[in-house]
Amino acid sequence: MAKPMTPVPFTDVTLDDVFWRPRIDTNRNVTLEINYKHNKSTGRLAQFTWKKGDHHEPHIFWDSDVAKWMEAVAYSLTTHPDKSWEKRLDAVIDDLEAMQQKDGYLNTHFILVEPGERWRNIKGEHELYCAGHLIEAAVAYFYATGKRKFLDIMCRYADCIDKTFGPKKGQKRGYPGHQELELALVKLYHATDEKRYLDLATFFVNERGKRPNGKHYYDVEAKARGGACDRDHAYCQAHVPLREQTEVVGHAVRAMYLYAGAADVAAETNDTGLLKALDRLWDNLVNKRMHVTGGIGPTSQNEGFTFDYDMPDETAYLETCAAIGLVFWAHRLTQFHRDRKYSDVMELALYNGMLAGVSLSGDRFFYENPTASFLRMRGIQHGESEFYRYERSAWFGCACCPTNVVRIMASLSGYQYSVDRNAVYTHLYAAGKATVNVAGQQVAITQSTKYPWKETINFTVRPQRDAEFTLALRIPGWCRKATCEVNGKRVKLDAITKKGYAHIKRTWSKGDKVKLVLDMPVERIEAHPSARQPAGMVALKRGPVLYCLEQTDNFEGLHDLRLPADAKLSAKWEPDLLGGVVTLNGKAKKRKGDQWKRTKTDGKLFSQDRSKLESVPIKAVPYYAWCNRDLGEMRTWLLES
Amino acid sequence: MAKPMTPVPFTDVTLDDVFWRPRIDTNRNVTLEINYKHNKSTGRLAQFTWKKGDHHEPHIFWDSDVAKWMEAVAYSLTTHPDKSWEKRLDAVIDDLEAMQQKDGYLNTHFILVEPGERWRNIKGEHELYCAGHLIEAAVAYFYATGKRKFLDIMCRYADCIDKTFGPKKGQKRGYPGHQELELALVKLYHATDEKRYLDLATFFVNERGKRPNGKHYYDVEAKARGGACDRDHAYCQAHVPLREQTEVVGHAVRAMYLYAGAADVAAETNDTGLLKALDRLWDNLVNKRMHVTGGIGPTSQNEGFTFDYDMPDETAYLETCAAIGLVFWAHRLTQFHRDRKYSDVMELALYNGMLAGVSLSGDRFFYENPTASFLRMRGIQHGESEFYRYERSAWFGCACCPTNVVRIMASLSGYQYSVDRNAVYTHLYAAGKATVNVAGQQVAITQSTKYPWKETINFTVRPQRDAEFTLALRIPGWCRKATCEVNGKRVKLDAITKKGYAHIKRTWSKGDKVKLVLDMPVERIEAHPSARQPAGMVALKRGPVLYCLEQTDNFEGLHDLRLPADAKLSAKWEPDLLGGVVTLNGKAKKRKGDQWKRTKTDGKLFSQDRSKLESVPIKAVPYYAWCNRDLGEMRTWLLES
Repeated sequence: MAKPMTPVPFTDVTLDDVFWRPRIDTNRNVTLEINYKHNKSTGRLAQFTWKKGDHHEPHIFWDSDVAKWMEAVAYSLTTHPDKSWEKRLDAVIDDLEAMQQKDGYLNTHFILVEPGERWRNIKGEHELYCAGHLIEAAVAYFYATGKRKFLDIMCRYADCIDKTFGPKKGQKRGYPGHQELELALVKLYHATDEKRYLDLATFFVNERGKRPNGKHYYDVEAKARGGACDRDHAYCQAHVPLREQTEVVGHAVRAMYLYAGAADVAAETNDTGLLKALDRLWDNLVNKRMHVTGGIGPTSQNEGFTFDYDMPDETAYLETCAAIGLVFWAHRLTQFHRDRKYSDVMELALYNGMLAGVSLSGDRFFYENPTASFLRMRGIQHGESEFYRYERSAWFGCACCPTNVVRIMASLSGYQYSVDRNAVYTHLYAAGKATVNVAGQQVAITQSTKYPWKETINFTVRPQRDAEFTLALRIPGWCRKATCEVNGKRVKLDAITKKGYAHIKRTWSKGDKVKLVLDMPVERIEAHPSARQPAGMVALKRGPVLYCLEQTDNFEGLHDLRLPADAKLSAKWEPDLLGGVVTLNGKAKKRKGDQWKRTKTDGKLFSQDRSKLESVPIKAVPYYAWCNRDLGEMRTWLLES
Repeated sequence: MAKPMTPVPFTDVTLDDVFWRPRIDTNRNVTLEINYKHNKSTGRLAQFTWKKGDHHEPHIFWDSDVAKWMEAVAYSLTTHPDKSWEKRLDAVIDDLEAMQQKDGYLNTHFILVEPGERWRNIKGEHELYCAGHLIEAAVAYFYATGKRKFLDIMCRYADCIDKTFGPKKGQKRGYPGHQELELALVKLYHATDEKRYLDLATFFVNERGKRPNGKHYYDVEAKARGGACDRDHAYCQAHVPLREQTEVVGHAVRAMYLYAGAADVAAETNDTGLLKALDRLWDNLVNKRMHVTGGIGPTSQNEGFTFDYDMPDETAYLETCAAIGLVFWAHRLTQFHRDRKYSDVMELALYNGMLAGVSLSGDRFFYENPTASFLRMRGIQHGESEFYRYERSAWFGCACCPTNVVRIMASLSGYQYSVDRNAVYTHLYAAGKATVNVAGQQVAITQSTKYPWKETINFTVRPQRDAEFTLALRIPGWCRKATCEVNGKRVKLDAITKKGYAHIKRTWSKGDKVKLVLDMPVERIEAHPSARQPAGMVALKRGPVLYCLEQTDNFEGLHDLRLPADAKLSAKWEPDLLGGVVTLNGKAKKRKGDQWKRTKTDGKLFSQDRSKLESVPIKAVPYYAWCNRDLGEMRTWLLES
C-alpha cells in the first residue's frame, strides 16, 4: 500500500473566493455565535455544574454539542484570533477539569445525572461518542493556541478509556455505539505521539462486530444491565467485523464516522485488508445508495440506509451530518487512491448535500435534506387538515447538524490540496492562496477563479526557487471537456491524466501560470434505471452545482412541470440573487388548468380527455440555496417529456 | 325533497354472469368458511364463554368480526338455505342470549373482561360499533329465516342503548366513536317498525360534534375516566356537527359509515339540510380525495384522509373497508339523486377498490390497497436489508376487511336496481334476472351480457301484463358513445338521458328487448394537475375496470416503463387467465440496461449521458386481479412519454 497523501492543513490555505468565502465569514460571524447562544440557552454550557433539581438535565449527547462548537471556535481562532472567544472556551475547559473524575472519566451525564452507571450501555448512550468529540475539540484548541490544558484533560480521559476497553483480561471488549472516537483517537495520537491512542482506535475498529466466545459485546452489556439489545447490531455497523461488510447499512452518520476512522487506522497501520473493505463499501455507497445531492441515508426510520437504488424525494432524510461524514470519508480515501472517484463525491457532497444544511444567513439549519418539498400534513386539527411547509429550524433538540456544519465550514480550506511525495494535488477549485510544502520548500500556489460559476481557473505557482514537482489538477468527472495551458501553452490533458487528475510535471519557476478551463454546460442527470422514484425524470446540474426549482421563481404545482427533451436551458449570472448565483433559465410545459376547472355540480378528479399543455418559463436555482426566500415548493427531479 | 328510490333487494335479483357469479360462489363456498375458521381459531367464537385466565381474551372489536360473518351467513341462507350454517349461527345466538345482561346490555369485552367499565370510552372502545354490527346481523338473520330470537336480543340491547343515550336528563349525550350503529338502527327500525330506533339514529347523527354547554362529549367522557381525549375529534368526524362539515377528514371507514347512516336518517326524516351536507362532502371526496381505484383514505397514520389531491402510490392505504363504505354511501345517494354521478363511483369502487381486497381464491385478503407495489423494506437484520413484497394475508388481527368483503359479496345483487315511483333504474350491468315491483305488478327483467368484458347488454322485460313504466339505464360517465335499441329500433339516447340515466318510457309488453351498447375503448386516465404523485402518468381503464401491470406479465423495474403517447393498446379476451379477463396489450419503452452496466472499478448511479430506450411488449391485467400469481411488482400509474 502506497503511503497516503497528506492534506494541506486548512491553516495553510486561505480561501478568498466568490463562493465559499462569504459562507465561511458568515459561519464565523453568525453561525459560531448562534451555536454559542443555543448551547447556552438550552443549558448545554451550564451542564457541567448541574445539580439534581436544576432545569436542563444534561442529556447523554450534550457533551458532543458543546465539543463541536468548541472545535469550530478553535478552528476560527487559528485564522482569526479572538480573546473573547478564547475566554469562553477556557471557562468550559475549567468546568470540564473541575468535573473530571480522579481516574480521568469525563462525561457530564454519567457523572452528574446517573453517577455509577458509566459504561453500562455504550451501544446506546453515546459516552464514547462524546469522548471523541471532546478529543477533537481539545486537539483543535491545542493546535490553535498551543495551550495544553484541554489536551491534557482529554489525554487523561483517553487513558481512562484505554484502561477500560481492550482485549486484555479484565477489560471490556466494547466499542463505540455511535462511532466517532476512532478518528478522534488518531488525531490525539498525531497531537501527542502517544501510540496507545492509535492502538485503542485500531482495537475499536477491529473488535467491532466480533463475537468472542460466540458473544456479541452489545448483547453481553445488555444482559449485564438486565435488558435486551435495543436495535439490530447493523444499525451501528456492528453486525459483523468491518472487513467482512459489503453493504453500507444502518445509521448513516455512524457509518461515515466509522469508515473515516477506519481509513485513518488503515493509513497508520498500513492495513490493506481494511482499506479493501472500505473500497468495497464505498462502491456500494456511490454506485447504489447515494442521492444526487451527495446526501445519503434516505429514511428517518433508522436515520440511514435502506436498499439499493432507493431514492425517495419528498421524504428523503439525507441528514446534513451524513453528508458531512461522507466528506470526511471521501477526503480520506482520496489521500489513499489519488483518484477523482473519491474527490468528485467530496465536491458533490460539499457543494450540495452539506451546504443546503445551513441558510445563507447562517442561523437556520436543516437536519433532513429532502430533494423535493411540497405541502406536508401535520395532522388534522379541528377537522381541517393541517399543513406545513418544510423549512430550516433555528435549532434542534438533537443539535448534531448545526454543530457539525459550523466546524466543517471553519476548516473547509483543508479539503483543497494534498501533498504527495513530489506532487501537489488540487481537489477543489476556489480562489485563494495556499502554502504547500513540496520539493523541499514552501511553494505558494494561488487560484484565481469564479468557480463554480465560471469555467476558468488560473493558477500562479511561486516556488522560492526553481524546482521540479507535479501539480496534479482534478479534472472533474462531470466535465466533458477540459483544456489546460501552462504559461500560455496548451497541454494535452489526455496524455497526462491519471485517475482523473492531470499531472503537470515540470520545473516550476516563480510566477508560472496554469490556466484550466472546465466546460460547464447545463447537464441533465438521469438516475440509474433501477432507481424507481426518479424514473422518467432528470435533475439539472452545472459544474458541481445541483439545481432545483423553487415555487417562488416559478409557480405552485411544480410536480406537473415537464421539461421537453429539447428544451434549452441557459445559465445566467444573477449577482443580486441568493448572494450571487448562476441560475438556469428556459421554457418547460405544464398542464392547462382551465380544462380541469370544476363547475358547481360536476367535478373532475380524473379525466380520460387528455390535457393540453402550455409553455411556462422556468428558473432553477442552486439546490444548496433553496429555502432562503418565500416558503414554497421545491423540486430537483423534473419530469421530462 | 323527493322520496328516494327503493333499491331492489338482493333477494329479488340473481346474478348469473361471467364476472360476479364466480366470485359470489367463491365467497359463499370459500370466504364464508374461511371467516368461520379464523373467527373460531382466534377465539372469537368461543369468546362469549370466556373466563379470566383463558386464552384469547375478548378484544373490544371481536363482537363485530363475528357479527359481520353472521350477517354474511344470513345473506347466504337467503339464497342458499343450509341447515348446518343455521346451526352454527344459532349456537352463537344462544351464547349471546346467555351473556346478555338483565338490562339488555350486550358486549362481550365489557361483560367478561372489564365488567363495570361499560360506556367509559365510547369514542375509542367500539361498544356502539359492535352493537351496530350485531344489529345488522340480527336483522339479516331475521329476514333470512323468520326466526326472531336474535332480533329480539338485539332489540333489548338497542332499548338499553336508547335508555342510556339521548338528550334527556340523566342520559349520556354521546354517540359512536366508530360509526356504524346509525345505519344499523335504521335497519332495525325497518325490521321492527319501532320508531325509537330511528329517533336514536337521528340523535346520534345530529348530536355528533355538538358542544352542549361548551363541552364536547368525548372530552367529558375522557375527563370522567381521568384521561385526556386520545385523538383529535376529527379523526371520527366529531369536530363539528355533520351539517357544518365541508371536508372529508379522519378515519375513512368511520366517515363512510357515518355518511351512509346519515343518508338513511335524512331519507327517513326528510332532512334536506342533512342531505345538503352529505352532497357537499361527496363533492369534496370525489372531486379531490378519491383514488383512481375508488379507494379512499391514503395514509396509514389515521387510516384515512390527508389533504386534497394527495395520491401516493406505493404507500397508499386505501383500506378495503373504506371502499366498501364508499359503496354503501354512493348507493344511498344514488337513491336520492337518481344521478350517475353517484352510481358511477359505486361501480368504480365495486369493480376495483373493493374487489382487490380478496383473492380470486377467496381465502386471502388485502387490508391496504396500494396502487403500486415494489420491494418494501422490513428493516435491517444481520446487516442485510430485509425486503418483502406486499401480498394478501390469510387473516388479520384486526379482521374488519375480510368480514366486510364476505358480507358485501353475499348481498351484491342488491346494488343493481332501484325502483322509483313508475320506473326501474339499472345501476349495474351483469347477466342475471330480477323481479321488480313496478307499475303495480312484478316485472321480470333479465340482462344477458358479458359485461364488463363486452360492450353489449341485452335486456328482456317481462311484465305480467302490458304496462307503461320507465326503464332507466345508466350510461356510465366513462362511456364516450352509447347506443340503444328497443325491439331492434334505435333510440336517440341524448334526448332521453337525464343525469346520466337513459329513461326509456313506454308501454312494455312481455318479451320486449332492449339492446344497450357501451363503447369500451382502452382509455388513458389522467389525474388532476394538482395531484402531485401521478403527474406525468396515466392509468389504463376499459369500461369500469382499472388496469395495472404486474411483473409476472412484464418485467422487473416497472417504474421505468414509459408509455408512448401514441402507443396502441388492444384489448384481448383471455379465458384462461385469472378466471377469464380482458387484458390490454401493446408496446412501451424502457431504458436499456446495458448502458448502465458497471465495471469492476467504475460505477454509474447517475449519468449525464442520456439513456437509449428500447421497445418492450406490455400486458396489463385488471387491478382487482393483481397478486393472484407470482409475487412481484405492480403499477397502475404509468409514465407517459
